[in-house]
Amino acid sequence: MPHIALPEGLPGIRGAMAFRPETAKPLNDLVEVLLAGPNSLTAGERELIATYVSYLNDCHFCQSIHGAIAAAHLNGDEELVRRVKADFQHAAISEKLKALLVIAAKVQRGGKNVAAADVEHARDLGATDLEIHDTVLIAAAFCMYNRYVDGLATTQPHDEAQYRERGKIVARDGYVAVSKTYLSAEPVAR
Amino acid sequence: MPHIALPEGLPGIRGAMAFRPETAKPLNDLVEVLLAGPNSLTAGERELIATYVSYLNDCHFCQSIHGAIAAAHLNGDEELVRRVKADFQHAAISEKLKALLVIAAKVQRGGKNVAAADVEHARDLGATDLEIHDTVLIAAAFCMYNRYVDGLATTQPHDEAQYRERGKIVARDGYVAVSKTYLSAEPVAR
Repeated sequence: MPHIALPEGLPGIRGAMAFRPETAKPLNDLVEVLLAGPNSLTAGERELIATYVSYLNDCHFCQSIHGAIAAAHLNGDEELVRRVKADFQHAAISEKLKALLVIAAKVQRGGKNVAAADVEHARDLGATDLEIHDTVLIAAAFCMYNRYVDGLATTQPHDEAQYRERGKIVARDGYVAVSKTYLSAEPVAR
Repeated sequence: MPHIALPEGLPGIRGAMAFRPETAKPLNDLVEVLLAGPNSLTAGERELIATYVSYLNDCHFCQSIHGAIAAAHLNGDEELVRRVKADFQHAAISEKLKALLVIAAKVQRGGKNVAAADVEHARDLGATDLEIHDTVLIAAAFCMYNRYVDGLATTQPHDEAQYRERGKIVARDGYVAVSKTYLSAEPVAR
């Protein structure tokens, strides 16, 4: 049961966002720019970073929905998403993305863990400053989203099909567009 | 030295924001709603939560600037800010704020640490659902801002007077207004 009276029928972050539309707006705007905006990293790559960090933070809702969105961007390859979570160094992803995932994992444990050598390695494999910046911020942002979702004890369904369905819609329409369906102009009773 | 080529002369998060104005916008909008927007928690109380979480995450820049903003809201009481960081249970703050700081500290370690009893205790001391929500999100958000600032190895001055000066300005004008002075319409070279 959620720690506070969140609107029913909206799992994970969606219930929290409906409860507080004023903060939902910048939270949605941020994830839209980071994961769905124009970028030299593909949407699939960025969703894999978000999924991996959510997995490290043990957030069921976030790793499930972002894993599903990642798979939707990667021709439905759910096995690749599982592999990245379990052992990304042996997953069929680029060496550059592996180097970025190393940075993301260090950010997850705390920003000071990122070493100059980690960044240099990513750069040697072709990562740009913008890609390194966005990797750090995606990892940092999911340390927020994960804590928000779990810190309020939001409801988190365990039905994979539900995430798969929703993942396809978010991958197609983006975060800000889909949030309009549950962020009403009227504030929820609170 | 920062891990990527950030614009010079802008310490901490400001350099990172100037580097990437597209993400700076929602990052500023979020902190504005959370810390400076209308709220039944005072701005001073919310800044103390942000400062305490930044202290737990050992982020020098964030704990210094938010500590300075908190002090500016609290009639310049820097000793109270120091006391909250070192031992908030014996600081001259309300019992309700102490209960909220307990929740914030648990969110800092991971969202699942927040227990129903922690929330019940805060509620018994007068905390509303909105105040509990905002405490969780402030703590979660600073787990992001702190990682962003440290993960890029931004420059972080150790001159207290600089933070004190800036803290007064942010406390007076808010986050979005002050960010306009360094977020130009023109993207920084990157």
